[in-house]
Amino acid sequence: MYFEKIAILGVGLMGASFARAVRKLGIARKICGFGRNEAALVWATKNGIIDCYDVTLSGLASGADLIILATPVGTFERLVTEISPHLRQGAILTDVGSVKGSLVYTLEGLMPKGVHFVGAHPIAGKDQSGMKASSDKLYKNALCIVTPTDKTDLTALETVKNLWSSIGCSVKTLTPEKHDEIFSSISHLPHIAAYAMVNVIAEINDGFFEYAGKGFKDTTRIAGSSPEIWSDICLLNNENITSHITIYIDKLNTILTHIKNSSKDGLIKEFDNARALRKKMNDSLHTNIEDCIDNV
Amino acid sequence: MYFEKIAILGVGLMGASFARAVRKLGIARKICGFGRNEAALVWATKNGIIDCYDVTLSGLASGADLIILATPVGTFERLVTEISPHLRQGAILTDVGSVKGSLVYTLEGLMPKGVHFVGAHPIAGKDQSGMKASSDKLYKNALCIVTPTDKTDLTALETVKNLWSSIGCSVKTLTPEKHDEIFSSISHLPHIAAYAMVNVIAEINDGFFEYAGKGFKDTTRIAGSSPEIWSDICLLNNENITSHITIYIDKLNTILTHIKNSSKDGLIKEFDNARALRKKMNDSLHTNIEDCIDNV
Repeated sequence: MYFEKIAILGVGLMGASFARAVRKLGIARKICGFGRNEAALVWATKNGIIDCYDVTLSGLASGADLIILATPVGTFERLVTEISPHLRQGAILTDVGSVKGSLVYTLEGLMPKGVHFVGAHPIAGKDQSGMKASSDKLYKNALCIVTPTDKTDLTALETVKNLWSSIGCSVKTLTPEKHDEIFSSISHLPHIAAYAMVNVIAEINDGFFEYAGKGFKDTTRIAGSSPEIWSDICLLNNENITSHITIYIDKLNTILTHIKNSSKDGLIKEFDNARALRKKMNDSLHTNIEDCIDNV
Repeated sequence: MYFEKIAILGVGLMGASFARAVRKLGIARKICGFGRNEAALVWATKNGIIDCYDVTLSGLASGADLIILATPVGTFERLVTEISPHLRQGAILTDVGSVKGSLVYTLEGLMPKGVHFVGAHPIAGKDQSGMKASSDKLYKNALCIVTPTDKTDLTALETVKNLWSSIGCSVKTLTPEKHDEIFSSISHLPHIAAYAMVNVIAEINDGFFEYAGKGFKDTTRIAGSSPEIWSDICLLNNENITSHITIYIDKLNTILTHIKNSSKDGLIKEFDNARALRKKMNDSLHTNIEDCIDNV
């Protein structure tokens, strides 16, 4: 596995960390970036994160045999529409987006003949965003989901799987649909819940924040995530997310009813169930993977 | 400040940590415990956490000038009803309970003449429960709320404030009502939200837990808390909690509506608001205090 030119769209935490990890492996002749902020791209070049940058998508695509989307998912369709006429035969397009589903089929449909799309979602990140927070170890021990379809080129699929494995990920394959159902529940819903929780306190009395302990802080840590990224995720995975928010409200209403009925047994049943599952989770396999606060 | 006998009802994480901290200061001639499990009390005595224990409340109360309630809040009224005839003149009764409100007035009303109740709530704890997880440093740098009423004896109030200060707490005074409103929002609601979140995944597909990242884990960490303790809290602070769950459901419905209407602007407004408040909280004063997972 060797690439002539890796083109990275979006040199933020995810894109820059990918560049650093790939550079360390020495599997690309050059790594080039594209972004909105030219000054940042200059900084990334001077600091050895990327070898070069382009301010046009045609320039970036020129000669690239691997292109990776690392911008907010809401921009993917537009960017791929613009870049695809410039992609060379045999090139592989992949991404780091938190939403797959219909987006994967849309992007697949935008590929010129002989260019292959393979969706990927590395579950990695940290609290800080931007290229300055990037690290060649970000993807180390992370889970990476790849989401082939019936039309996915099998050679391209193998290349993308090898690529993520080689930078330290544990790679799993899911359909785009199953991916979105899973991450709606285990990631997208908790983000929405955290945003909503902070807004509750603001509505009641924002002076109450000063009494917050570690429980509140942990519960709402991911409310520090990027609104741009997470609004895109909500809109692109809207069917799963609306269904899961509804189930969450149902569960809250169950507890509310037990409280209104002074049903200690009812409350203990709900809490016991949750506690047992949460404790079991501590023993599960992927305890080292970090959630992706800035993962697009 | 020196006590002849400190009597601790409930030698779990909170009670045993209190015993250890007080012993280190050398402000009590003896520290005695009471609990349901005699073998545990023997262990605590052998390991120097307490000096002695009693299996009857009359024995425990005998000669005690400071009595501290460290059992689940739902047991307070019964225990105080049983112990109060045995309390000596001038004794002070306090607690570590997460609920104040009407409970404070109830307990106050159960005091014999010359015995004083002062409510307290140290915001401290950790993930493990029980005396074996106890530490003389648990209350170090923690916030401790004391909740006097119009009838509170001022000398007893000063003693209780000094007591918590002396073991490292930053002491604040609130009315019982304000305490319950604040902690319903900033602590009780997040616990309920965490329990409900875990139960959502179980309902959708419990196989999805294996895909959980750090975000889900942090968001649901407090779902590992004791169902016994938290069902009591829910029932005793039911008015605030039902009101705050309702506001939380409203906030979730606001986000749900924006998703259904494909309103990116609406989502960004909600998320921006939460993000700004959450980031501001990181800079606030009490960043070192730990939430109380087993705090009664």
